Amino acid sequence: MGQQKLLFTPGPLTTSESVKTAMLRDVGSRDQEFLSVVGDIRRRLLELGHVTGSYEAVLMQGSGTFAIESVLSSVIPRQGKLLVAINGAYGQRMAKIATVLGISCQTIVFEESLPVRADRVRQALREGTEITHVGTVHCETSTGILNPVSELGHIARELGRVFIVDAMSSFGGISINLVEDKIDFLVSSANKCIQGVPGFAFVLARRDLLEATEGYAHSVSLDLLSQWKGFESDGQFRFTPPTHALLAFWQALVELDQEGGVEGRAARYSANRRALMDGMTELGFDTYLAPQHQSHFITSFRFPADHRFDFPLFYQKLSELGFVIYPGKVRNGECFRIGTIGHVFPEDIRALVVAIRRVLDEMQIASAHAAAYV
Amino acid sequence: MGQQKLLFTPGPLTTSESVKTAMLRDVGSRDQEFLSVVGDIRRRLLELGHVTGSYEAVLMQGSGTFAIESVLSSVIPRQGKLLVAINGAYGQRMAKIATVLGISCQTIVFEESLPVRADRVRQALREGTEITHVGTVHCETSTGILNPVSELGHIARELGRVFIVDAMSSFGGISINLVEDKIDFLVSSANKCIQGVPGFAFVLARRDLLEATEGYAHSVSLDLLSQWKGFESDGQFRFTPPTHALLAFWQALVELDQEGGVEGRAARYSANRRALMDGMTELGFDTYLAPQHQSHFITSFRFPADHRFDFPLFYQKLSELGFVIYPGKVRNGECFRIGTIGHVFPEDIRALVVAIRRVLDEMQIASAHAAAYV
Repeated sequence: MGQQKLLFTPGPLTTSESVKTAMLRDVGSRDQEFLSVVGDIRRRLLELGHVTGSYEAVLMQGSGTFAIESVLSSVIPRQGKLLVAINGAYGQRMAKIATVLGISCQTIVFEESLPVRADRVRQALREGTEITHVGTVHCETSTGILNPVSELGHIARELGRVFIVDAMSSFGGISINLVEDKIDFLVSSANKCIQGVPGFAFVLARRDLLEATEGYAHSVSLDLLSQWKGFESDGQFRFTPPTHALLAFWQALVELDQEGGVEGRAARYSANRRALMDGMTELGFDTYLAPQHQSHFITSFRFPADHRFDFPLFYQKLSELGFVIYPGKVRNGECFRIGTIGHVFPEDIRALVVAIRRVLDEMQIASAHAAAYV
Repeated sequence: MGQQKLLFTPGPLTTSESVKTAMLRDVGSRDQEFLSVVGDIRRRLLELGHVTGSYEAVLMQGSGTFAIESVLSSVIPRQGKLLVAINGAYGQRMAKIATVLGISCQTIVFEESLPVRADRVRQALREGTEITHVGTVHCETSTGILNPVSELGHIARELGRVFIVDAMSSFGGISINLVEDKIDFLVSSANKCIQGVPGFAFVLARRDLLEATEGYAHSVSLDLLSQWKGFESDGQFRFTPPTHALLAFWQALVELDQEGGVEGRAARYSANRRALMDGMTELGFDTYLAPQHQSHFITSFRFPADHRFDFPLFYQKLSELGFVIYPGKVRNGECFRIGTIGHVFPEDIRALVVAIRRVLDEMQIASAHAAAYV
């Protein structure tokens, strides 16, 4: 393997040296020392969500999608119905999971460039009396758009529905209060804003709702209630946990705290995003989203309007310079994405912008518009 | 976190420093460099199973149980039926997964201290014409017993059934030839005899059978066919992979090769096991299994017949001395287990035996029998 590159992706992302170094130990998955780490991780996750009394943190092996499937396959009864409010690939994935599981599912699909509309969700819930659960994505990683989860949560609670949020790309990098936002189940992953390494994801769950799901699970591995009961009975994962990833995550949580918690981290991500926009605007790039819909986690940029622009070559040249960006994931536009999360700082963003300028020069692209080179 | 301990467990186990050090890098999950590693891992796994033409290696996020569920939930049609030959907790788990998935399932349960009997499986297949798939465990980690997978494979093939083997604790540490043994689907995990860190598992699958499973999957995350198609189309995992665990596993495969491949590793594990038996016999411990059924991966020892023996205290004292052993998992006997796999050597085993002797002394246990202290 070659050089260490900086990752400007939605995760796996660049982590601190100390987070990686925490993995230089083999610990027994049933040893008390490790179980203390697992217990502390669960406690800290609840604190990050501003919930300590009536919620539970359940860790789940696999990627974020595994934890999304764990929730959908574990908390919706056989006669239940899920409504998914969709404005991107991850909302679509939620609906696909429900469909494969044989769960009755209805979707409301919005433009990818616009937030989910709360009034449309309210109307669908009023009309669809058989709907028991509502799901949506907080920050759609496919574009970087932020959806109004608090507004949606209030509507779901008012109308007596369970509210499930995919907060994969946002949790830990923006303040979320599950109680105030009326979120019943929230899913996120180790390798996002908390800046751990990939290997597991987690669910923050309202305990009373979780306890009421006995017999609902469609799976053994992804059984959320059994996984929680395992932690509660002996502190252990039911099945082999990624011990090294958990040691790294614990260190990452300590470092999140040292950075000033979620507020401190959100401030840095905002600074990253400002540095990115300053540089990319100067180079003439246009964003896919209008500024008011944009999060500070990841930004979609439109391809330059120049026939010499070739994304695979652009990506490859940046990668050779040590900067890894991310392909686009929208249906109605040619875009690439740049993440501003992870152990990266405004100076790293500025170095990335310098590299992008250099690659555009090499590709003989005058610019996304000429003003960049005056 | 405190000292680095030696793990005598069935995994997560002690890995080499170089395997752990391979994790000190963050790589993009879609970057070419990482995809080359994934491709090489898949190729090497097929070589380890002595199958290169007609089989495929599919990596799956999560623990070994996730990959077992991936196979059971992906390759058995809705009208299919699974027969599980069981002599321990992991065979039971296979049957439980099938039951939760709503797959028709029949079991033949044997004594935990005896191998699965091929004649009984043959009889069940002759009588149960509706049975389409047969599953069993190669080395039952609950006791360390080895089952006759080659004999069972020949019977299944002869009678036209698909044969699924849980080789979690054995693959890489004992020669397995999937073609000769007539194994259609084999499952193992990163953190076992190949000596990687936990975070993913893998399936070796007969390609023609895998290709015929379109539409069978009960899950999105654990969909084996889609996961394989993802690797084949662009070399990527469909969902975020545990990149660091994969870098470690690639290094572990290189080190397996350097040790002389599966034969070299099996020789060391046998030497570990002999050192363990020499020491434990001298201390007067009895094994749960008769010697002819015992593998060199993990050994179950009966508790000493002394009322002063207290397993949690025994475990804790050994752990404080830097040696992590494993609790028992049999129904009809009080046992603990000692694993002889991982980056541990006969001298480590002898150090463990010295520590066990010391702890027995501290617990004022004359010995499992007095002869040990003459």
